[in-house]
Amino acid sequence: MSAVGEAIEIKKAGGALDPELISTVVNGYTLGSVPDYQMSALLMAIFLRGMSYDETLALTRTMADSGPRYSFPDCVDKHSTGGVGDKVTLTALPIVAACGAPVAKLSGRGLGITGGTIDKLESIPGLSVELTEAQFERQAAQVGLAIGEAGELAPADKAIYALRDTTGTVDSLPLIGSSIVSKKAATGAGHLLYDVKCGSGAFMKTPEQARELAELLVALSKSMGVHSSALITGMDAALGRAVGNALEVRESLEFLRGEPTNPDLADLARDVARRLLSLRGIPEPGPAVERALESGAAYEKFVAFVRAQGGDADALEDLPVSGSVREVVSPDDGHVARFDATGIGRASLALGAGRENKGDPVDFGAGIEVLVSIGDMISRGQPVARLYGERNVTQAAELVEAALGLSAEPIGPTPHVLASL
Amino acid sequence: MSAVGEAIEIKKAGGALDPELISTVVNGYTLGSVPDYQMSALLMAIFLRGMSYDETLALTRTMADSGPRYSFPDCVDKHSTGGVGDKVTLTALPIVAACGAPVAKLSGRGLGITGGTIDKLESIPGLSVELTEAQFERQAAQVGLAIGEAGELAPADKAIYALRDTTGTVDSLPLIGSSIVSKKAATGAGHLLYDVKCGSGAFMKTPEQARELAELLVALSKSMGVHSSALITGMDAALGRAVGNALEVRESLEFLRGEPTNPDLADLARDVARRLLSLRGIPEPGPAVERALESGAAYEKFVAFVRAQGGDADALEDLPVSGSVREVVSPDDGHVARFDATGIGRASLALGAGRENKGDPVDFGAGIEVLVSIGDMISRGQPVARLYGERNVTQAAELVEAALGLSAEPIGPTPHVLASL
Repeated sequence: MSAVGEAIEIKKAGGALDPELISTVVNGYTLGSVPDYQMSALLMAIFLRGMSYDETLALTRTMADSGPRYSFPDCVDKHSTGGVGDKVTLTALPIVAACGAPVAKLSGRGLGITGGTIDKLESIPGLSVELTEAQFERQAAQVGLAIGEAGELAPADKAIYALRDTTGTVDSLPLIGSSIVSKKAATGAGHLLYDVKCGSGAFMKTPEQARELAELLVALSKSMGVHSSALITGMDAALGRAVGNALEVRESLEFLRGEPTNPDLADLARDVARRLLSLRGIPEPGPAVERALESGAAYEKFVAFVRAQGGDADALEDLPVSGSVREVVSPDDGHVARFDATGIGRASLALGAGRENKGDPVDFGAGIEVLVSIGDMISRGQPVARLYGERNVTQAAELVEAALGLSAEPIGPTPHVLASL
Repeated sequence: MSAVGEAIEIKKAGGALDPELISTVVNGYTLGSVPDYQMSALLMAIFLRGMSYDETLALTRTMADSGPRYSFPDCVDKHSTGGVGDKVTLTALPIVAACGAPVAKLSGRGLGITGGTIDKLESIPGLSVELTEAQFERQAAQVGLAIGEAGELAPADKAIYALRDTTGTVDSLPLIGSSIVSKKAATGAGHLLYDVKCGSGAFMKTPEQARELAELLVALSKSMGVHSSALITGMDAALGRAVGNALEVRESLEFLRGEPTNPDLADLARDVARRLLSLRGIPEPGPAVERALESGAAYEKFVAFVRAQGGDADALEDLPVSGSVREVVSPDDGHVARFDATGIGRASLALGAGRENKGDPVDFGAGIEVLVSIGDMISRGQPVARLYGERNVTQAAELVEAALGLSAEPIGPTPHVLASL
């Protein structure tokens, strides 16, 4: 019997796959000797039967080893499981770089309602995310901040993810955990913070699910020799005001320049920065973060990063967004009880800021500015969101209206950081 | 979401697929719009989550309807789930045809240790199993016995079976049941007897599994409008003396001619014939079967069938088998406690009588004559089997030796028919 046939039989019966078998099957799939239809049957068996921690680790290791592996033991990195308006990378990483903790990060593109850092960065004219390993290494050392596209790393994960995406096998904890950690381990940063998003706009809907994933990510990372910790943060509403590529870069720059900013975003950016500095062993991270912001060092670091990757730093002063703008207003008086991240994400997607399918074109200037926060007391006719973009504006407006929930009663504050480990 | 994506989600969660969804997905797969890798993920989810009776019936109906459907409401048919040396079709069907119950049967080729009626028939020089629907219908009416190859019927089952075979999703009761009954319903005989084999040489290893399958086959057939019943028969040892194509036809002809025959085979052939006649409503089936055998009518029916399908009836007198013969002898004195059908089947396969993979060439003259039965008292050096064929003779002899188990104590008789329903 073939290795994949053997693996299917074992997993069907609820048994455990040994590391050699996992390696043979995964490498066979990546190289094309294991066909899609056998791999998808195995993935479904894994989905329904689960995998032990040891199996999950073996899968992680095999996928990490399936392509080149970089090594940046002194660098820090962060990973978000994906949300709406999540610009923590754009805000926290320049701070930690300014504080002397070099950042080597590889990132991805957005899909569905989940934005991707690479798309956001590409809204900056001229900026390239295609770095060779040598460029990436040099920039991490000289500028202290390098963000590239995770193209050739962990090709096995890439191949398996594409198959999972079409076979109903995405939402499996061991498959999610091994996918994330294999890419991070291949990127090679020595210190890593996971930001596990939790809520209606995130992949993990409940705090329990989010905690389970966070624990798995930290454990797998440790087993792979990466020093890591995790935050669980809320994603019932979009993070900050801006959703959409250039809009999010603009909001991030406002924060880095010390201009008035949405407090949820400002708090989380500071928190993530402090935790990354702690992970890296930098003393007194709290004051260090404040100094980097107040002195303008964090903003300057972002500018230096943009220049190093070929971006037009002058354009950062007034990054272009769509000139086609429409406001959505509140239908009633009330307290904002809900402004659902999924609805906002779908609206932004409809406007052209994201892609339904891989390879779809993106309008970098499209997106949404969210004008009210959970708990705000608002009046009928008051603008609650500003839509940017020319595509599907009516549909987007309807999605935004449906995402808004008002309450007659005041709404208490909701914590943004739900847990840390 | 695509129909197959929807089906995967429902089945993953343990829900039930409605008939329309099953039909859309199965027809999409057969026509090529649903890719292999999605279908195999769905099959694995079905394998692990199961299917209700209603889902299984809907799948059966969709597969039966996926190609042409014949209709022979007056004809009888039998189906064996496959065994070693199983020549019940070759022996029982000429009897029932001679008793006035016309037979319209479509059959398959052997794979692995399981023989196929089509291969056995093709060991008769000139005989063709490629019948058009019109030829099939005419022959059933005029000769009363027609056996063709199940080529174009139930193409959805054919496509799905090929995928199951490589994705570890064969041994699923609802998938087995729907596969068998869809083909039988498409063949269209009105009266059908299932012979569910049970034991080490069969697909169903225990009487409980065999009964579960038998009950499902009878229920699905009834729901599809086919009048049916089932036998559960033992397959721990090969049936009769001969294993291999021409050897099995020779043994069948010996029985039909009234020559001395292995009693297990003779009893089962008579039993199946009587049950088929009962199903068809023919009165006094017991005496009718004996008359057909004693008068030579059953043998004549077989000869007429061979002639009608282009076979050389003169060759039946002395059908050629391999001239390369080797005997395997008993290593000891003792009572035959075990002569394992799987080992005999593997040995016959090794000699070239079967095929490991679809499309492998078959040596029609190769096979094994089993010279002892369970319970026989034998002596050291006594021949227990005769091997025919030129390929892998040493390996085949070792397999036969390993299949034989002797006991110092006498062995009681084992019933051949384990149950009927």
